[in-house]
Amino acid sequence: MLRCMSIVMYDLAGADPELRFSPYCWRTRFALAHKGLPVETIPWRFTETDALGFSGQGRVPVIKDGDQVVFDSWSIAEYLEDSYSGPALFGGAPGRAHARFVNAWADSVLVGGIARFIVRDLLDVIDPRDRAYFRSSREQRFGQTLEAVQAGREERLTAFRESLLPVRLVLRKQQWLGGAAPSYADFIVAGTLMWPRCGSRFALLAADDPVEVWFLRVLELYGGLGLTAKRA
Amino acid sequence: MLRCMSIVMYDLAGADPELRFSPYCWRTRFALAHKGLPVETIPWRFTETDALGFSGQGRVPVIKDGDQVVFDSWSIAEYLEDSYSGPALFGGAPGRAHARFVNAWADSVLVGGIARFIVRDLLDVIDPRDRAYFRSSREQRFGQTLEAVQAGREERLTAFRESLLPVRLVLRKQQWLGGAAPSYADFIVAGTLMWPRCGSRFALLAADDPVEVWFLRVLELYGGLGLTAKRA
Repeated sequence: MLRCMSIVMYDLAGADPELRFSPYCWRTRFALAHKGLPVETIPWRFTETDALGFSGQGRVPVIKDGDQVVFDSWSIAEYLEDSYSGPALFGGAPGRAHARFVNAWADSVLVGGIARFIVRDLLDVIDPRDRAYFRSSREQRFGQTLEAVQAGREERLTAFRESLLPVRLVLRKQQWLGGAAPSYADFIVAGTLMWPRCGSRFALLAADDPVEVWFLRVLELYGGLGLTAKRA
Repeated sequence: MLRCMSIVMYDLAGADPELRFSPYCWRTRFALAHKGLPVETIPWRFTETDALGFSGQGRVPVIKDGDQVVFDSWSIAEYLEDSYSGPALFGGAPGRAHARFVNAWADSVLVGGIARFIVRDLLDVIDPRDRAYFRSSREQRFGQTLEAVQAGREERLTAFRESLLPVRLVLRKQQWLGGAAPSYADFIVAGTLMWPRCGSRFALLAADDPVEVWFLRVLELYGGLGLTAKRA
């Protein structure tokens, strides 16, 4: 397919517009890179819901591909797989169906688990205009102050690392979650891990954890897309 | 492929030889049925390791397909997919790779979680010759008596049910874990749920849980293979 212009992607940014830390936007960034599709990212802040009005909703990632508008990281991955050839994200219907389980696990266990380690840190890196909204919405969700949510994180680290056992078991058997080559399953989990990597300075994984070793391999892909991303 | 004889499968049995409750053997039973392959099961007890000597190890499931001997439920699923046409278990390399994550999640979160609800119950249904081995090996694993492991299970039920959230999230989007049709991902999770269904009388899932609704759909497959299986 001949392309005349890049896909445009609205990407959550911090006070520093180069700081990108959304676990969902990173899934999309990796998926676009895997497909070899150039992208122009537009830094977006939580309170800029009007800027997404064209998409009919108020959250990122959102992509514009010519006249096509797609939001929600999973829907974007499906759109890219269905619209573009090149390396597979899912590799057929069962591959897609099974990747949904990885996505559901990441959205619940991984996002929920990581939030309790970094949510107060995020307040320091997001745009000052986002801070009141971020604090009130997250404190309502957790029923606690951000400081209370994050408190005692060192003591909770072992249990969190144990929750990654399914990933660790898979990586004993294959190099990527996608098997012999990376797939969207890798981008779901690695994209989610970009959230603490870029949004916080807290080290969630031990350096010798096979999950960390695999994560560093993902970071090196696509010219070091993840490795070179700005960090807090 | 022309077949002259059934595949033979060594299947964990209770004191009642018709009671089959291994979470791994059930994965294999469903996989064989999905492929449309007839099977002759041989009831096997924990202490009959000698009977499996031909396989070079001491655990079930083991299948004999003519001259081929395959053990370990995952390896058997791969063998069946690679050896027989018919409905797919994995549907290609990424589908297989992603199913490994479901398998790893089931082996850790699901098997580990369920064990604490039924391990004492299992002692009542296994063969009397297996009981001393079962008690000592499991008590060593848990570092507690079987009675202590299972104690207070009513209070732990909510947390266990919450651990199934990834399955529930997937079933909001698709009818089977395999997508529009059942795949080995369904048999991994449903096979594991056959363990409490057949080995205990404790109701792990609420009747209106979407996981239970889906499980009953799996039980109805293949002429009600799961539905008609003998229960404790």
